[in-house]
Amino acid sequence: MFQIRSLGSCRFDSPLKKSLGAKGHKFIGFVTDDDRILYNPRLDAFRTAITHGMEDPISIELAGPREKIFFDSSKTKAAIVTCGGLCPGINNVIRALTLELYYRYGVEEILGIRYGYSGFTQKNFEPVKLNPKVVEDIHMIAGTILGSSRGSNETKEIVDYIENNKINMLFCIGGDGTLRGARDIALFTMLKGYPLAVVGLPKTIDNDISYISRSFGFGSAVQEAMSSIKSAHTEAKGYYNGIGLVKLMGRYSGFIASETALAVNDANFVLIPEVDFDLDGKNGFLTHLFRRLESRHHAVIIVAEGTGQNFFDKDKIGYDASGNKELGDIGKLLKNEILNYGKTNKIQVQVKYIDPSYMIRSTVANSDDAIYCIQLAQNAVHAAMAGKTNLLIGHLHENFTNLPIDTAVSKRKNIDPTSPLWMNVLEATGQPVRMKNS
Amino acid sequence: MFQIRSLGSCRFDSPLKKSLGAKGHKFIGFVTDDDRILYNPRLDAFRTAITHGMEDPISIELAGPREKIFFDSSKTKAAIVTCGGLCPGINNVIRALTLELYYRYGVEEILGIRYGYSGFTQKNFEPVKLNPKVVEDIHMIAGTILGSSRGSNETKEIVDYIENNKINMLFCIGGDGTLRGARDIALFTMLKGYPLAVVGLPKTIDNDISYISRSFGFGSAVQEAMSSIKSAHTEAKGYYNGIGLVKLMGRYSGFIASETALAVNDANFVLIPEVDFDLDGKNGFLTHLFRRLESRHHAVIIVAEGTGQNFFDKDKIGYDASGNKELGDIGKLLKNEILNYGKTNKIQVQVKYIDPSYMIRSTVANSDDAIYCIQLAQNAVHAAMAGKTNLLIGHLHENFTNLPIDTAVSKRKNIDPTSPLWMNVLEATGQPVRMKNS
Amino acid sequence: MFQIRSLGSCRFDSPLKKSLGAKGHKFIGFVTDDDRILYNPRLDAFRTAITHGMEDPISIELAGPREKIFFDSSKTKAAIVTCGGLCPGINNVIRALTLELYYRYGVEEILGIRYGYSGFTQKNFEPVKLNPKVVEDIHMIAGTILGSSRGSNETKEIVDYIENNKINMLFCIGGDGTLRGARDIALFTMLKGYPLAVVGLPKTIDNDISYISRSFGFGSAVQEAMSSIKSAHTEAKGYYNGIGLVKLMGRYSGFIASETALAVNDANFVLIPEVDFDLDGKNGFLTHLFRRLESRHHAVIIVAEGTGQNFFDKDKIGYDASGNKELGDIGKLLKNEILNYGKTNKIQVQVKYIDPSYMIRSTVANSDDAIYCIQLAQNAVHAAMAGKTNLLIGHLHENFTNLPIDTAVSKRKNIDPTSPLWMNVLEATGQPVRMKNS
Amino acid sequence: MFQIRSLGSCRFDSPLKKSLGAKGHKFIGFVTDDDRILYNPRLDAFRTAITHGMEDPISIELAGPREKIFFDSSKTKAAIVTCGGLCPGINNVIRALTLELYYRYGVEEILGIRYGYSGFTQKNFEPVKLNPKVVEDIHMIAGTILGSSRGSNETKEIVDYIENNKINMLFCIGGDGTLRGARDIALFTMLKGYPLAVVGLPKTIDNDISYISRSFGFGSAVQEAMSSIKSAHTEAKGYYNGIGLVKLMGRYSGFIASETALAVNDANFVLIPEVDFDLDGKNGFLTHLFRRLESRHHAVIIVAEGTGQNFFDKDKIGYDASGNKELGDIGKLLKNEILNYGKTNKIQVQVKYIDPSYMIRSTVANSDDAIYCIQLAQNAVHAAMAGKTNLLIGHLHENFTNLPIDTAVSKRKNIDPTSPLWMNVLEATGQPVRMKNS
Repeated sequence: MFQIRSLGSCRFDSPLKKSLGAKGHKFIGFVTDDDRILYNPRLDAFRTAITHGMEDPISIELAGPREKIFFDSSKTKAAIVTCGGLCPGINNVIRALTLELYYRYGVEEILGIRYGYSGFTQKNFEPVKLNPKVVEDIHMIAGTILGSSRGSNETKEIVDYIENNKINMLFCIGGDGTLRGARDIALFTMLKGYPLAVVGLPKTIDNDISYISRSFGFGSAVQEAMSSIKSAHTEAKGYYNGIGLVKLMGRYSGFIASETALAVNDANFVLIPEVDFDLDGKNGFLTHLFRRLESRHHAVIIVAEGTGQNFFDKDKIGYDASGNKELGDIGKLLKNEILNYGKTNKIQVQVKYIDPSYMIRSTVANSDDAIYCIQLAQNAVHAAMAGKTNLLIGHLHENFTNLPIDTAVSKRKNIDPTSPLWMNVLEATGQPVRMKNS
Repeated sequence: MFQIRSLGSCRFDSPLKKSLGAKGHKFIGFVTDDDRILYNPRLDAFRTAITHGMEDPISIELAGPREKIFFDSSKTKAAIVTCGGLCPGINNVIRALTLELYYRYGVEEILGIRYGYSGFTQKNFEPVKLNPKVVEDIHMIAGTILGSSRGSNETKEIVDYIENNKINMLFCIGGDGTLRGARDIALFTMLKGYPLAVVGLPKTIDNDISYISRSFGFGSAVQEAMSSIKSAHTEAKGYYNGIGLVKLMGRYSGFIASETALAVNDANFVLIPEVDFDLDGKNGFLTHLFRRLESRHHAVIIVAEGTGQNFFDKDKIGYDASGNKELGDIGKLLKNEILNYGKTNKIQVQVKYIDPSYMIRSTVANSDDAIYCIQLAQNAVHAAMAGKTNLLIGHLHENFTNLPIDTAVSKRKNIDPTSPLWMNVLEATGQPVRMKNS
Repeated sequence: MFQIRSLGSCRFDSPLKKSLGAKGHKFIGFVTDDDRILYNPRLDAFRTAITHGMEDPISIELAGPREKIFFDSSKTKAAIVTCGGLCPGINNVIRALTLELYYRYGVEEILGIRYGYSGFTQKNFEPVKLNPKVVEDIHMIAGTILGSSRGSNETKEIVDYIENNKINMLFCIGGDGTLRGARDIALFTMLKGYPLAVVGLPKTIDNDISYISRSFGFGSAVQEAMSSIKSAHTEAKGYYNGIGLVKLMGRYSGFIASETALAVNDANFVLIPEVDFDLDGKNGFLTHLFRRLESRHHAVIIVAEGTGQNFFDKDKIGYDASGNKELGDIGKLLKNEILNYGKTNKIQVQVKYIDPSYMIRSTVANSDDAIYCIQLAQNAVHAAMAGKTNLLIGHLHENFTNLPIDTAVSKRKNIDPTSPLWMNVLEATGQPVRMKNS
Repeated sequence: MFQIRSLGSCRFDSPLKKSLGAKGHKFIGFVTDDDRILYNPRLDAFRTAITHGMEDPISIELAGPREKIFFDSSKTKAAIVTCGGLCPGINNVIRALTLELYYRYGVEEILGIRYGYSGFTQKNFEPVKLNPKVVEDIHMIAGTILGSSRGSNETKEIVDYIENNKINMLFCIGGDGTLRGARDIALFTMLKGYPLAVVGLPKTIDNDISYISRSFGFGSAVQEAMSSIKSAHTEAKGYYNGIGLVKLMGRYSGFIASETALAVNDANFVLIPEVDFDLDGKNGFLTHLFRRLESRHHAVIIVAEGTGQNFFDKDKIGYDASGNKELGDIGKLLKNEILNYGKTNKIQVQVKYIDPSYMIRSTVANSDDAIYCIQLAQNAVHAAMAGKTNLLIGHLHENFTNLPIDTAVSKRKNIDPTSPLWMNVLEATGQPVRMKNS
């Protein structure tokens, strides 16, 4: 389940042997495929294994440079593609991939595919040639210099393009849908016997990829999201019974909503997809909200965009180009419900609704993410040069890992309502543990 | 027309005489009512006056401390009220008013009226007692610690409250509507012979008050608005035919939109209330927008909220509590028009619409505004202590001024389409001088 | 070696049982002392253990709330002390300790000791009473509201104070020296049989504590340090042969220097204590620096403060109040050496030297650190309430841990010159792997 | 005295006539040489003039586009040079000059002189060719892309270079020394009959140029300086008798020190060159400082770099390359005096000294300065194209002006100790009006 696919045996010496060893000193930073870390580092799991003579527990391959590599650098051609919504750090990844390929491995042909997977299939989207000069300062720029798009594309067409252009390795920067696309490309080329290394770099601002401690851009997003909460707080306090309502990202998980609530500490309610609640009724959200207004006369609410989808008519929900379910707009629904409740109960309220999504997505990576992106990218290049494919680069227990795409996309990471994180949120907000009537 | 009303003769020595003169050195910073500046500092106006033996040209009284004052500090009670939408710097003004009254003039009774003018009339809104301890750090906090509200209130009720509470001076921080309210209070008390000094501090994030070089908070708003334009630019470049559309404040004038466009320099179109345009037709906005997309494949549009009201059905427009006309949502209208044009002409576009209003209003004052707010407030206290009333504090030709409220609200300041400012915008955006078909 | 000391058996029910379980739902977030994580999560270590039938490998106790606790909340008195240099996040920790003690455990007597350990011994330093109201907004303030100091103090005097004031638990926020002091207090009271829980919170901006993935404030420091590097870069490029030289924190380790170099990517040389270099000679630093100047005419150097101490006369080095060796000023030494080299070789240079230390230390915690500080503090309270002592709260493999102080201070964490981190730095700077002549 | 020199009669039509008039609409933004503003806009000055039949009062020519211009755009070659210390906004000015020359006037040959005036005389400093593409994003970069230098150079050599390279207009971005150099170049070429338009753009972070309301970069500097004061405040409060001491720019004037003190409001003492003080004695600075420590146990001091030069041995003062007097380091002197006073009087103090100079100089222009720089640059181009020379672009009474260089450098602007600005500082700090013993 956690085994990485390989294109074949590694015949070439890694150029790192020379470049990073000091004169007369051997480079000793290489990693082997036997270097793995336990998924579960708990002592009791270890003891159980000892006692029961168990086989190997679940472990994950360490990422890192290999002493022998599969591709001959001078004949290698790489491609980079960025898909889905914007996220802080994409350009940092593009830059670090390019620098690593070029300077450390000597790969000089690097194509930047335009506008996501559609760049493989739409004739007028000419790829960009990437090199150290082109990418020099792009880490200072938000967004993606390559452009992005949502939506799936014919795997066959993409593979045709790859073959026609003699591309040997493909770096896919994207989330769930992108990674499934990457897997299909990897499988398709493996079936055809075309040696293509496909390596994913997990870009999900929602931080919901399993087996990975955090996805790049998430920390920067939380930091940027803080100012929207501060604004909501200021607006809420500025008026009698003022309510600041902020919708943050999080289709299936409340990580951004929860961590932002902790970081800024001005929210009174955090509503996330993992925790159901009732709107009405004596233990419902509205009752609790207006109880707070009665005593403090202002309130701040954070809601993750995927929250409360049960309040919407399921028959009316569509799908976007990437096959993601279109979400009902919980922000507007809450705003209306609050205004109606106020009107019905003759309580004057002012709702200030803030949707900062694009302003968060389009921020530059902060220092942590900037460093993290470099490291993810370097490990992606190490994996590709070693002929590994159908994997993505992860991070666990302070180590970078090679993770099979299938494993990563098999389930989503989300917030356990009994976890310390959610306990922290409950405490920071003071909101009830349950807001349901039964 | 520019004459300041006075409550009566000034019998008391200003406490500043002692407190700000060094030992044995006289304080020489006093200003007299004869210190005035010309509204028009042009030389040709001067020459015309000389030639024709003209009377005094339009001039404005300088603000500043008077040697003799009207009120006896120890028996004076002041009130401060903040009205209308939030704006950077309100708390700086509250703080500086309090410190000036308390430390420089020895006024120790200072009431902070809650939630705008409604704090005078709603029984449950108890005023806050303000003193140096209470206001010590409030300049670090955005919004208003007093709370605000929109809407007019019965002048009689307000005056009753003022008389009952023996308030001698009222500082009104607000815009157009607030200042008209302040004027009514001033006139009403004058008629009754109740000695109340009413001094306005012009808070309009739109910067549209006449005879004043800039209103406080405007510069901070422009600075904060920059990041929304950068986000729009990032999102626009992130997709094929991406369009970043940002709606900024500006009910009747395009100052924020224009200055932000200059400061950040990523916008391709700036649409403001002062400059009419057509949507359709061969010289219409949509034609020019899609022409730009054709060549560059992304575009950024800034629109001031009061723009293009002629596109809305006039019969459907209502009025808000302050008596402001409710604006049609030009942001959504443009978004829909663009999407429709794309659909009709089979051109794929992505519109990313950003409405950062609350995030701009709720920012803290930047350094320029912080200093400006202190100076406005100090001059407001000087004016009130000298028994001046029905005025607001302005700034012109590098001097602070005492300006009759009637003069200030008699007309709005807006952008002259032949001014250097608008020329700069045209040049910075590259947009056509006219986007009308006839 | 990694065993946590306990004050005795836990007789009381944790109040969390009620407060954090929803009505009729049991709280299931408790941790037991058997919950431990492996220090080394490598698979090969596991296999070796299996094969050789080894005993337990090194493991670390998990932090977290215990179902049974040692102290009776209503009779418990806590004290908090902050020592050493400032660091982002101290007030966040003070705040979260206070809120956790007060709200979750019902401990209402919380003393804030003034100015480090000297607050225990100097009569005029009255402690501050801490409660939720006092700490409400302190996470927005940099530094420490309690004040700090360097220097050791008589353990006996401190313990006398603790006994006289009937303090039951002591939270020590500080680095190496502080933690040794905390250990002495813990041991001294244990010997005397006085039940005091001593829990450390590792504050070291240098990030050099072993067995801990990162110390709080470190990430914020790196983020803040970025702007000093950008300034150095701007100044360097502003003049012919301009050199921007920045001294960053790091007495024994180059973590801040290295991570900042990666995050901002403008440095050409990073000099750290772990990597020796020669100044002169044909493979010395100065030769390489001037070679770079010759081709690019500007350079940026980051030096960690503890670097190159071998260049100073050992006999002249003193010790500060905390017993830390006083460092020779490597920044000034480098500046002079560079100027001399230029003068000797008749090469015009301009050195702009920046020492941003205080501006970094006095920044507010960023979002990551803000959240991390809350979690550290909550776990510190859990440990203290459970009667654990002589420990500090750490973080490893995505889990918070209880770590014996002795273990943590037994050795320093520093940068391995063969690690990916240092490889990244070499690559990002382009500096030679070795700058030594032999 | 305020008359602008001209190279000759203006024979060419301004290209603006076409480019900025809408189709069929005439551009009406032109300014004539008769458009002037009064230097003194006071009403009493006007009345005196009327009464006494006085001649024209002092007036200043308005800047702006002229309908007829001196140079033939297609044959014109411009040069831009940046001198002296860095300052926020230089690149904004370079960019706006280039765009204005290129797009509005059609001047396509624009040289960027490297490293100040030395770029004219040092053979190896090849100029950069500037065009819209090159300058597109430079307003996002701090410093100067051309490089700078201090120091005077032989006017004759510079003029030789200008003649040899057929340069027609020279834009000098710099302060006092630079402007004197520019004047010499202007006079020298006029004497020789070589038609060169020399236009200065006043860059002085100290804001000390007379007849100009503010110099570009000053506002950004104050904003950036705020964080150093906040740091000093945090450090001061972090220790018992902690003192934060910040040295800010200001060789002859205390504008940055004073405005920063107002903007951030944490300073207890502001020391500026315009206000003498004694260190010792019972009304000296040290007495007042330690009195404050006694009551509050922390203090923040801002000192402008040119303050207290009388404390230094005049014989030891040298001159830098630009002919500026080298200043004694008042920051270090104060630090030592404070430590000595503490030692002598057995009062424990901790002095944290911050010198943020380079970090302030190397910041990017804020929104106000960004807009101001565009406008200064456009007016500089208008003046040069109209054949005006030996002038700089100023700003007064909300208008941009053409100011003779001689006028501007004839005296420095500084702070009047009886002005409202200084009164504000005294009040904000609470420091004594005089700290002298006699």
